[in-house]
Order: sequence, then C-alpha cells, then structure tokens
Amino acid sequence: MEHMNRQGTAGTKVLAFDVFGTVVDWHKSVVQEVRSMNLDVDGNQFALAWRAGYMPAIRKVMSGELDWTSIDDLHRMILDDLLQVFRLTHLTEKERRSLNGVWHRLDPWPDSVEGLTRLKSRYTICTLSNGNIGLLSNMAKHASLPWDCILSAEVFRKYKPDPAVYLGVARIFDIEPDEVMMVAAHQDDLAHARECGLRTAYIERPMEYGPLQQKDISLNADNTLHARDLRELADLLSC
Amino acid sequence: MEHMNRQGTAGTKVLAFDVFGTVVDWHKSVVQEVRSMNLDVDGNQFALAWRAGYMPAIRKVMSGELDWTSIDDLHRMILDDLLQVFRLTHLTEKERRSLNGVWHRLDPWPDSVEGLTRLKSRYTICTLSNGNIGLLSNMAKHASLPWDCILSAEVFRKYKPDPAVYLGVARIFDIEPDEVMMVAAHQDDLAHARECGLRTAYIERPMEYGPLQQKDISLNADNTLHARDLRELADLLSC
Repeated sequence: MEHMNRQGTAGTKVLAFDVFGTVVDWHKSVVQEVRSMNLDVDGNQFALAWRAGYMPAIRKVMSGELDWTSIDDLHRMILDDLLQVFRLTHLTEKERRSLNGVWHRLDPWPDSVEGLTRLKSRYTICTLSNGNIGLLSNMAKHASLPWDCILSAEVFRKYKPDPAVYLGVARIFDIEPDEVMMVAAHQDDLAHARECGLRTAYIERPMEYGPLQQKDISLNADNTLHARDLRELADLLSC
Repeated sequence: MEHMNRQGTAGTKVLAFDVFGTVVDWHKSVVQEVRSMNLDVDGNQFALAWRAGYMPAIRKVMSGELDWTSIDDLHRMILDDLLQVFRLTHLTEKERRSLNGVWHRLDPWPDSVEGLTRLKSRYTICTLSNGNIGLLSNMAKHASLPWDCILSAEVFRKYKPDPAVYLGVARIFDIEPDEVMMVAAHQDDLAHARECGLRTAYIERPMEYGPLQQKDISLNADNTLHARDLRELADLLSC
C-alpha cells in the first residue's frame, strides 16, 4: 500500500532512519540467537520480553532516575532481570556478554540493503536510533548497511523522543527540519518527529513482533509517505 | 618506505583516521576552488593562509576563549579575516558561504578510496577528525570514502589533541586503547594518540602543503607503522 500526502517530498535532503524494527529484524535475530545457545526457553517470549523492557529503561534515563546509560548497558540490565524470570541464572558472565551482543548482530529485513543503497544514490542516509554508536557501527558492518553517517542518541546525549534528537539531525547537517525525513516503523516515533517539523515516512513491518503477534499497520495520513518496505520507499522517492 | 616497529599490529580492531591532509588533499582542492572563482589571488598562498588559521582557532576553543564552535564556523571566521588581507571583501555572502563549503568538497588522494576499501575488509574504519559531522559526511559522499562510522570532535565536544577524543574511540567501541590505531600524516597528532595508549600509523603525504613547500616525512620509530600511502598501509596490514 503506497501513499503520499499533499506535503510532498521536494526539498528533502536527509533521510534519518529508526533502526530496530525498521531496518533490522530484532525479533527473528534474538529468537535465532536463543535457539543457537540451546536455552530451555520460549525464544518468542524471551525476545518480546527483552524488547518490552526497552522503553521503560529509556524512560528512566529521560526522567533522570538513571544517569546517561548506553543501550548496551540498558540491554544488559534488562537481560540480567530476564534471566531470573526465565530461570537462566546459570549463564556465565561470558555467555551473558555474548548474548547481549546479539543486538550488534541483528539481521536486516530482506529489502533493507537494496532499499538503502538505492536511497543513498539521491539522499544522505543516516541512522537516528537510540542505539549507541558502537552498536550501530557493528550492526552496519554485520548487515552491510551502507549508511552515510551513523547518528545516535549518544551524539546528542538525549534519547528519542526528546526533540533534541530529531532537531539534532537538522543542526548537524545545517539544514531546515523539513529538509529531513524521519523513516520508521513506529507511529509514535514519527509523531514526535513531525512535531519538530520533520517529514515522515512510515514503513509497515507487520512481522516486527514475530509471526504470532498482530501489528497495526493502518494508514496515517499525517505521514508524508507510507510504504510497505524500503524498496517501495525508494520507488516513492524515485530512486 | 615501509616500517613496522616491535609493538606489532596483532589485536588491532579499529583504524581511526585523521582526514585533512591524511585522506584528502585540502591544498589542491582549495587552490582549484579559488581558481574556478577567478579570484585575483595566489591560490597557493590563500590555501596555506586559510589552513594556517586552523590550529590557532582550535586553540581558542580549547582554552575557553571561544565557546564550542564547529569547524565550519571556525573556517568561516578565518575566511572573513583572509578576505580582508587578500583584498577580496567584494565577495557576497552567497559567495563566501559557497567558498567556505569547499572543505566539504575536498578531493581524496589517489590511493585513498582503494586503500580504505581494502582496510575496511578487515578492520572497522572511522574518521577521527576535528571536522564537524556534517562536513565529514558531505565529504565522504563527495569523495566516495567508505567509512564504517564518522567520529568527530563534535561527538566528544573536545578538539584533538584533547585526550578525550583519542580515548573516546576506545570507549565508543568498548575496546582497549591499544586495540585502536590512529592513522595520520602528522607526527604531533600521532604523538598525542600514543600518549593515550593507541597504536599509530604515519602516512607520508609529502605534497600536503602543495608542490612548493617541503614537508619532513622522515621515519619516527615510535610509530607502529610508517607507510607511503593508504595502499601501502593496506599491504602492511595484509588487507
């Protein structure tokens, strides 16, 4: 389902991408990692629980309850709690570190590399993720993601949805907010970007939470663009 | 002239590159820009004077005399002074902005793209420049530089040679300082990196200041590696 609203896309210079769920398939990658370790646990439930701990942890940093903490460290804090819940406390420190590193080794959706490569021919493409720079760099190398630039909450020392992150892209590239288009599979991320004056492109990703969980991918006409995947986004942007 | 000291290179994970002079030829690019504008000025002297204003401007930020100021803005301050000296005050605001943007459009040395591409096959390659992120991103797109990650003084809010910049690379990638190798055409940059525990690779670039100015490219055995250019660095690192 394609869609372009009346705002149009002329003047867009930078495409800023959410990464977890939008560009890479965290659910499948975490499930596969858990299976490869032969853990006695439901991979689907474990992956969903790990991801569900993410926003509450981010909010603790945003509220000041926690000092600035990287996503790597937040993932690890959530993991240590989960290992209690899932009765996996026998995992060694080395195994925990390795498992936590799965977020550096997430696989791309099948369309991501081709879509990004085509979009890069006409636009500057950058990450705009809460993931730390090292995580995003390692992931790009693992998944062959051809970013022009890795921007992260770590650069701004604020997490999305803080406006400083969205507006930071325009500041970094010395352009106006409406010359930046935020690309994400999450309507709330896009709504915050829109409040800062960015254009927005929604990517459906109906399987983000795995095959067992429905995701609402209905059209929101407030977005500049709505595309099934990154290949279709490249089509819409004539790349 | 190749060289490898006793420290060796085993365990190196990230190569962090100085950019101006090491990866791109600022002198020739600025001279060509000045010529293309048909300015009544000696391009060589103009380029050298602009670059000579760089370290004094950086020092003003490091000392606190100036608040944090991007390289784009420092380049512009130096340029406005130079236009007085070279009697070019008739340039319009639009012409000044365009001329200042030449630092986003510097051309690579002939070996840079091939050398970096080979090095990227085995190492994470990142910039470690005082240039701002937007400048380095635009330059990478202009010159087809295949960085895994663009790191800049802007990320750390400190300029080289502040130790926070060199140590910041290790922190970003969660590795030890001696797992990072600083690559630069400037012995002082490398000396500061070494003091922070990084390995160092010197690149000769005898023409950095143009064909009329000699540059000392003699061997300093304190560096881990000494290479003529980035192709030879790739040879030394078996890439």
